[in-house]
This record gives sequence, C-alpha cells and structure tokens, in this order.
Amino acid sequence: MITTDICIIGAGPVGLFAVFEAGLLKMRCHLIDALPVIGGQLAEIYPQKPIYDIPGAPGIIAEDLVKNLYMQIEEFKPGFTLGERVESLEKQEDESYIVKTNEGTAVHCQVVVIAAGLGSFEPRKPAVEKLEYFEGKGVHYMVKKPEQFRDQNVVLAGGGDSALDWTIFLADIASRVTLVHRGDTFRGAPDSAEKVFELAEKGKIDLILQSQVSSLGGNGVLKEVSITGNDKSVIKVPTDHFIPLFGLSPKLGPIADWNLGVEKSAVVVDTLDYSTNIERIYAIGDINTYPGKLKLILCGFHEAAIMMQSAFKYVYPDQKLSFKYTTVNGVNPF
Amino acid sequence: MITTDICIIGAGPVGLFAVFEAGLLKMRCHLIDALPVIGGQLAEIYPQKPIYDIPGAPGIIAEDLVKNLYMQIEEFKPGFTLGERVESLEKQEDESYIVKTNEGTAVHCQVVVIAAGLGSFEPRKPAVEKLEYFEGKGVHYMVKKPEQFRDQNVVLAGGGDSALDWTIFLADIASRVTLVHRGDTFRGAPDSAEKVFELAEKGKIDLILQSQVSSLGGNGVLKEVSITGNDKSVIKVPTDHFIPLFGLSPKLGPIADWNLGVEKSAVVVDTLDYSTNIERIYAIGDINTYPGKLKLILCGFHEAAIMMQSAFKYVYPDQKLSFKYTTVNGVNPF
Repeated sequence: MITTDICIIGAGPVGLFAVFEAGLLKMRCHLIDALPVIGGQLAEIYPQKPIYDIPGAPGIIAEDLVKNLYMQIEEFKPGFTLGERVESLEKQEDESYIVKTNEGTAVHCQVVVIAAGLGSFEPRKPAVEKLEYFEGKGVHYMVKKPEQFRDQNVVLAGGGDSALDWTIFLADIASRVTLVHRGDTFRGAPDSAEKVFELAEKGKIDLILQSQVSSLGGNGVLKEVSITGNDKSVIKVPTDHFIPLFGLSPKLGPIADWNLGVEKSAVVVDTLDYSTNIERIYAIGDINTYPGKLKLILCGFHEAAIMMQSAFKYVYPDQKLSFKYTTVNGVNPF
Repeated sequence: MITTDICIIGAGPVGLFAVFEAGLLKMRCHLIDALPVIGGQLAEIYPQKPIYDIPGAPGIIAEDLVKNLYMQIEEFKPGFTLGERVESLEKQEDESYIVKTNEGTAVHCQVVVIAAGLGSFEPRKPAVEKLEYFEGKGVHYMVKKPEQFRDQNVVLAGGGDSALDWTIFLADIASRVTLVHRGDTFRGAPDSAEKVFELAEKGKIDLILQSQVSSLGGNGVLKEVSITGNDKSVIKVPTDHFIPLFGLSPKLGPIADWNLGVEKSAVVVDTLDYSTNIERIYAIGDINTYPGKLKLILCGFHEAAIMMQSAFKYVYPDQKLSFKYTTVNGVNPF
C-alpha cells in the first residue's frame, strides 16, 4: 500500500503543478495516470506543438512545458504510478480514501484530486465498414509520429482543424495525401482551409468533398478505401494508411460511477475551492465544469492553487494555514 | 483622445497578460500605469528576485517574466501611457467610458479593466520624528539599488521578512548594519530570523531588540538615529541611511471614488467573470477580492482569461464569441 497525503488522478500539466502547490503547504502527493508517461494531452496528443497561451512562456513546445513543470515539482518528491487506470475509490472509517488501479496498486490518501483532463478519452470513430479490423494495420486515430508516413499513401477524413492541419503537414512528407470531407466548406481555421484548397488546386493533394469513406479493403493490412459521394457514386482509392480525424470523445471512465455531480462528461465543482459534491474529492483542469469554465491549462493552474488551500484542513486538521509567498520564503523541499 | 476597445489600469504582469487574452478575441488594449515602466511590483519592488511559483517557469527572475510577458503581447500592439495616474472615469451616453489621467491623457474605451495590483501603494511610515524631512536625504522605504549602501552605515527597522532579508543581504555590503526591532522575536521566516541572530552573535551586525527608532538627526543629510528602548533608555547611533521596512499600505487612490464595491482596500468581484458591481468595469489580480482569493500572479492570469470572454459582448455586441485554442489556431496578430 502506498501512503500519501493527496492522490492526484492524472499526471497532465495541471496534475503536475498541483504537486507544487501542495508541496508549498507541506503536503505530499502521489499521481496515477493511464498513460505510460507524464504530461497528459501534452505528451500524448501534441508533444511537438508550440503552445502560445502559457503566461510568460510564449510558444513553448508542449513537451518542454512538461519538462519545466516536472523540474518545478521534483524537490517535493511526488510518487508516480504510470500506465495504470484508476478503477475504484474506497472510503475508510476515518474519512480517508484508498484509490485502486486496474493493476491492483492501492494508494491510501486523505484527499483525492481528479485532474484527469479529458478523462480516458477515445477518438470518435466514423461509421466505416471494417474500421476496427484495420486498427493497427493501417488505421490511425492520431498522428503521433509524422515520419512513419514518409513516402506512403495516406487518406485523411474530417472537416475540422486536425484534418486540415495534418493534411497540410503531411502534404510535404507523404507520397500522396487525399482528404475526404462530407461537406464542401471546413469548420477549421479559415487560413488552414484556404491552404488546403490551394494545395488541391496545385495538384499537391487530392481533395474529395461531399463524400465519405465508406469501407476499407486489404488482406491483413490496409490496401484501399472506398469513398462514397453524397450522390451515391463510389470510387476506390489505393492507400497504405487511413486517418479519420473526428475529434476525441471524452469518457469519464470508472470515475462516472463515483456518484460525483457530472454534466456533459465533466465533474461539477464549486468555484470557491473546486471541490466536488463529495467531501475530500476535488476536480481541477479540463475534467471539471462550472459556469464560465474555460478549458485552458492556465485556468487549471489557478484551480490547483486555490484547491490545495482548501485541502490543507484534511491533511493537517489541527493546524492553521499560513499563506507564504515563494518570492519571500523561497521553496522549501521535503 | 486615444481610442481603444479595452482600457487596462495597471501594467503589471496581470494587466500585461490581459492584453494577450483580449488580442485572441481581436480586442485592442491601452494600458495606463503610474510607474514609468511596465511590470508593476515585479519592476518596482523586486526586479532581481526569483519567482518560484509561475507554472512552468520555476525560479524566473521577476524582470525576465516581465520581458516574456511583453514579448507575448507585442504583436497585439497595445498602447501605453506610463508615468501617469488614472484620476477619473466618465461614462458616455452610449455606455462607453473615457478614462482620464492626472496629466490630462484621455482614453475612450468600451470596457475598463482595473489591474492595479496593490493600487497606488505607499510604504507604511513609522512614527519617527523628522522622518519625512530626511526622505531623499538618507531615509529609504525600499531597497532598490543595494549597491548604493556599499561601505555605508545603515540602520534598518522592522520585524518582518523584508527587514530580515535586507539585513542579511546588506551585512555583506554595508560597512555596518544595525537592525532595530520593537519585539524580541520576528514575524518573518524562522530560517531568516535564525540567520539574523547568528550574524548578531558573530558581531557581524548590531541587533537592537525591544526598541524603536524615535528620531533622526543631521544637518541637511542624515547623520544619526535615536533609538528608544521599551524601558525608555535612549541611545544614539551614527548612520548614513535609515531604512524603515514596515510593509506597503495599499491605497486604492482615485478608484475608491468610483462607487465600486470595496472590501479591505480591494475591489469586490463576481468570480463568474471578475466583473465589479458596475457594468463594463472588471477587476483582476491583486486589486480584487472574492471568497478564497489568493494574491498570486497565476490567479490573475486565470482571471484575465475568464474576464475577456465576458468583455467581448461590449466590444462586439453583434458577434457570437467562438472560443479557439492557440495550439490549434496559433496567434493571429492585428
């Protein structure tokens, strides 16, 4: 059994920074994440993308932000259980909790902080015949390593920013890029849509509008996609890869069964201290919701700072919290 | 007359970052600050001090944070009126405002954001005879350039962190440092208090406890301080400088006359959008207050992001706000 003051579910940027705010108040943390690495979406979805809205760090690359956040909390010696999914929460007689993972890891803590981002999110899958059969055999729901598509034939589908961005990006790398979209205008940034139309005009990509990928073919590995037009015409396009980009569908996962107040797949919190409807359980970052909520990393940082002040009373019930500035007092490691 | 969308009172870190959040929504800003430079407290009180709690930028030097924040907003071309104090606010027939400074500068805007930090703060002055007479002639309420005290005699007074920190720092620089304190224990960090007692034991500073500086002497420039003990005994100590460090007393200044809801020298806001009780006027950062408020820069950043979403309706009354991520859309300058 791991024993800590605060168990943080999710090791994304907000969960990581929460360790710092806890540490300033002499509270220890243990983090659990289903991903095998820290960083959450920053590590999983867009490690190489610049982030522009982190205050004071314009254009920082996502994975560098993760490194900096880790550097900031290292001296508070957080514990990590990575690559395991939180399954259950057991309230103890003394009001403390034991959090258990799918691998049987148990963490005993006074306070639980849900910083699970989009939750155990899943890509939205379009209705395409044999889609799941070809997963891992040519079907990808995310572009993790663009280099794997060098000199390959790639078909993308979607009408949002991801579809546009990756079409533009892969146009330079892949041997042939085809973008299939149901409509004839795009939901993504006008700039990007314009670039895609330009690439199509110049013959650098194939743009197939008012159409949808309807089925996949191949023998063990993907070899072709069938594309059905809104007019019911069908064409077949040979390809090595099919990348449907219809966004991520957040799933709360087991957390949904904990009797927390939930609205639209997010945990309802009180903005006074970002507490949930269950005592000793807080929710911060993209996983929570309240009137006016913005899903920004910088908002999660604020929520973490406020939340830890409130959690202090459960970890040190006999002490009065005295607030100190790091500029004056520095940071005192454990 | 300067015309802008949003007039920000205060060009500290939070006021600066507010320009970025406004810019993402295509709103232009003009900032007014009584200080001659941007950065607020970071520039004025502790430009060389490291700040430890900026998420993702551990230990950043205050003035570097200001530089980074400026870099982040530069492309949104904010206007600045520096070295002028905001005096009045005039509501126009169409609900917009004209903000005027003590120098007569006028800014016409749709929305006013008060990001004035501690307000037009003033050092707390102890009751010492002739204190104001010797201002600029040996009396200092802040240590701006430690080097000016090299090889000089310095008397400090106070029992908090500033008094302790500067006593320790100046012990290495000044020819003689004397710290005078009314009590015999310190309010500041235990570590620092311990260091001060050690320096006194080793004879490296003079520590005069249970005493107060009662009057100043000199002919045109400061030459000595009189120190009265709690037992009424008086001693005279020759000195070149007297630095009373009793904190800063925040003053709202003219803002106090604007009929805003105020509690303990801070402007009361609604955490839904950090709006004040007056429509089109918002308050963010250290100047505002709400239940659970933490005076942290990172909290001001969050408040700025949320607040600008709410201000959008006054600048673009006919448009629907569509929220976009910079990671997806980048930052599009004016």
